[in-house]
Amino acid sequence: MVSIIGFISDFGLGDTWVGVCHAVIYRACPLARIVDLGHQIPPFDIRKGAATAAGGVYQIPEAIHLVVIDPGVGGGRRDLCIVTVNGTRLVGPDNGVLLPAAYRAGGIRLAIALDAEKIDRDSPLPTFHARDVLAPAAAALACGVEPSSLGSEVEIDTLAPAPFGTYSLDGGYVMGEALEADRFGSLRFNIPAEDLDKLGLHASQLEIGIGHNSLSVPFAATFADVAEGEPVALVDSSGWLTLAVNTGSAADRYGVAPGAHVRVRALQ
Amino acid sequence: MVSIIGFISDFGLGDTWVGVCHAVIYRACPLARIVDLGHQIPPFDIRKGAATAAGGVYQIPEAIHLVVIDPGVGGGRRDLCIVTVNGTRLVGPDNGVLLPAAYRAGGIRLAIALDAEKIDRDSPLPTFHARDVLAPAAAALACGVEPSSLGSEVEIDTLAPAPFGTYSLDGGYVMGEALEADRFGSLRFNIPAEDLDKLGLHASQLEIGIGHNSLSVPFAATFADVAEGEPVALVDSSGWLTLAVNTGSAADRYGVAPGAHVRVRALQ
Amino acid sequence: MVSIIGFISDFGLGDTWVGVCHAVIYRACPLARIVDLGHQIPPFDIRKGAATAAGGVYQIPEAIHLVVIDPGVGGGRRDLCIVTVNGTRLVGPDNGVLLPAAYRAGGIRLAIALDAEKIDRDSPLPTFHARDVLAPAAAALACGVEPSSLGSEVEIDTLAPAPFGTYSLDGGYVMGEALEADRFGSLRFNIPAEDLDKLGLHASQLEIGIGHNSLSVPFAATFADVAEGEPVALVDSSGWLTLAVNTGSAADRYGVAPGAHVRVRALQ
Repeated sequence: MVSIIGFISDFGLGDTWVGVCHAVIYRACPLARIVDLGHQIPPFDIRKGAATAAGGVYQIPEAIHLVVIDPGVGGGRRDLCIVTVNGTRLVGPDNGVLLPAAYRAGGIRLAIALDAEKIDRDSPLPTFHARDVLAPAAAALACGVEPSSLGSEVEIDTLAPAPFGTYSLDGGYVMGEALEADRFGSLRFNIPAEDLDKLGLHASQLEIGIGHNSLSVPFAATFADVAEGEPVALVDSSGWLTLAVNTGSAADRYGVAPGAHVRVRALQ
Repeated sequence: MVSIIGFISDFGLGDTWVGVCHAVIYRACPLARIVDLGHQIPPFDIRKGAATAAGGVYQIPEAIHLVVIDPGVGGGRRDLCIVTVNGTRLVGPDNGVLLPAAYRAGGIRLAIALDAEKIDRDSPLPTFHARDVLAPAAAALACGVEPSSLGSEVEIDTLAPAPFGTYSLDGGYVMGEALEADRFGSLRFNIPAEDLDKLGLHASQLEIGIGHNSLSVPFAATFADVAEGEPVALVDSSGWLTLAVNTGSAADRYGVAPGAHVRVRALQ
Repeated sequence: MVSIIGFISDFGLGDTWVGVCHAVIYRACPLARIVDLGHQIPPFDIRKGAATAAGGVYQIPEAIHLVVIDPGVGGGRRDLCIVTVNGTRLVGPDNGVLLPAAYRAGGIRLAIALDAEKIDRDSPLPTFHARDVLAPAAAALACGVEPSSLGSEVEIDTLAPAPFGTYSLDGGYVMGEALEADRFGSLRFNIPAEDLDKLGLHASQLEIGIGHNSLSVPFAATFADVAEGEPVALVDSSGWLTLAVNTGSAADRYGVAPGAHVRVRALQ
């Protein structure tokens, strides 16, 4: 089986950065297959990067994921490889961007601080660890190198915190937040599909409080289960509970930006 | 020879969708080579997607083409594999988006309604057939599976209609429409290169009526055959008859949007 | 080792052009690995394309680089393969876009005018030499064909000039220009890392004159060596001397556009 490397960054597609990382990986491990899971994360937006990465890992868990949103590059933050309980391997900076993906892949089994010398990169460019440390580490993993041989283990409680927390429970509501709007305007919340049962949210109708709105929406399988222009709750491809509008934009309709608080409970 | 899979969608490049489909394909058929032929089709724009797909198929006929513009996903529309007379295999939803490409590849030889169970996907996510049905079907074709084993044949006259028609003839004119403007502002019409001879349009000068303009333009081989800023008719890479302006934008100059009627005849 | 083909163009990602070139290359040389180094060069912007290509070649010198910014396609300009002193092979039109990359790869060893017939393409489409001449030539090189067998040698002094010159020296200053701003707003100058020693610019503090500003900035290894919001000079991933602002935009701060003159000297 080929080794898949998912790759997310805030590099955009207007410069050479993404392609140069591809070249580094193909040189080191020609059998790898790189799949670009989004390079248009706004510069330095760790929240959006972490939300996107968690959705990518949910869909392709048995893979390596390289996630580079790295405003502190060169400032001494660690480069990490995290191995999850489910076996996903995450490579990126120690700024929290990997943590939501790690939680959705079963939690952290092992965290390694990458050592550039062990990756045979003695003098990484201080502004481009993606090319000189992180991509080579991902390539090494893709070709079978053990994570533990790329650096030294670090205590999990020393890792930088995640950019957003998990949901909480309050007065019969699941309290969470809007993580991101997708291209179609659907709003993803930090409530993962895998927790819906234990939260009692597997219902046919949900109450969703968001911004100044309190909505009663059907919890359906797909957009097309409601009329055009109507709101619907569903589990989207990323595995987050999502508020959508059939052939419309929930983000526009409800004027909600990432970070907004949401409040959800089952109605029936 | 490697199997090429052309891939067009309205997914954009800001989410994980395109890359996740790549991963599904590489997993199922590592020898496939995916070539991205455009993922920035405006959301739900079947017309633009169909025009782009037809141009892609014209250039890479001996391939598999995965085309996903799918506003009705989850709503019961069929997933299709169309085999054309020339041997091109098209995979996408039954909403007309595949039909112009099929016509340009010689017409439809066989249409199969994909059966998710035959593709070994028992419970496709209702919002993401691209990942769970269409991409796996394209991968299966790339690795040699016969189209007929992926579902059951359907009557061609039951397929949803194309988003734009073919040209017609009226009073000595070829009556068509503008399909799309490319990045350089060149306007493509629904008049294919392969029909120019029989339409009598292989001329040195064409009359083109478009919007409120009636133009007399040279029909040349390339932009550079006219002075900078001058209009020219040519057959562009997509194989559609095209109105361009040398180092300028025909779409801006003539204020024409996709769907506008055009009227063409040979002058000399 | 796999053959890497770097690919830069002004095609954008909204049309089939980039993917069609990928398909042509994979068909002709399945072992090649194409890395996209930027397709969002503004249409016809030879300056930006040349600057980006030079940065790409600096980072991946032992490769083939296909660079297509080609406003004169079809107008008789030559298609070129340039072999550099360091062994990089550059493929693109004879309009200067390859030259800064060639200089940064040690200078031109050999320039070949590509002959479509020798690449087995008798009738290239006049508007799309990228697909019909340049991509096939890059694929042939990737699979081991000698550059000299793809056409005939041309005199170096007959090549179209580069879109920007090298720096000059004047009154103790290195006089250059701003080449481009990257996604983060960092301004790259036409002063390459490999010349800093001989120019006496390996200093801890630089004076940089740019627009109406005369700045004294630290010359550091990375953004994080100065406080947030402060300017810093550094050598960025592209290997050009660069003026950046930590977690900010130098282009916005100093109101400088590509082409602006810059004046640099060491302060201490």
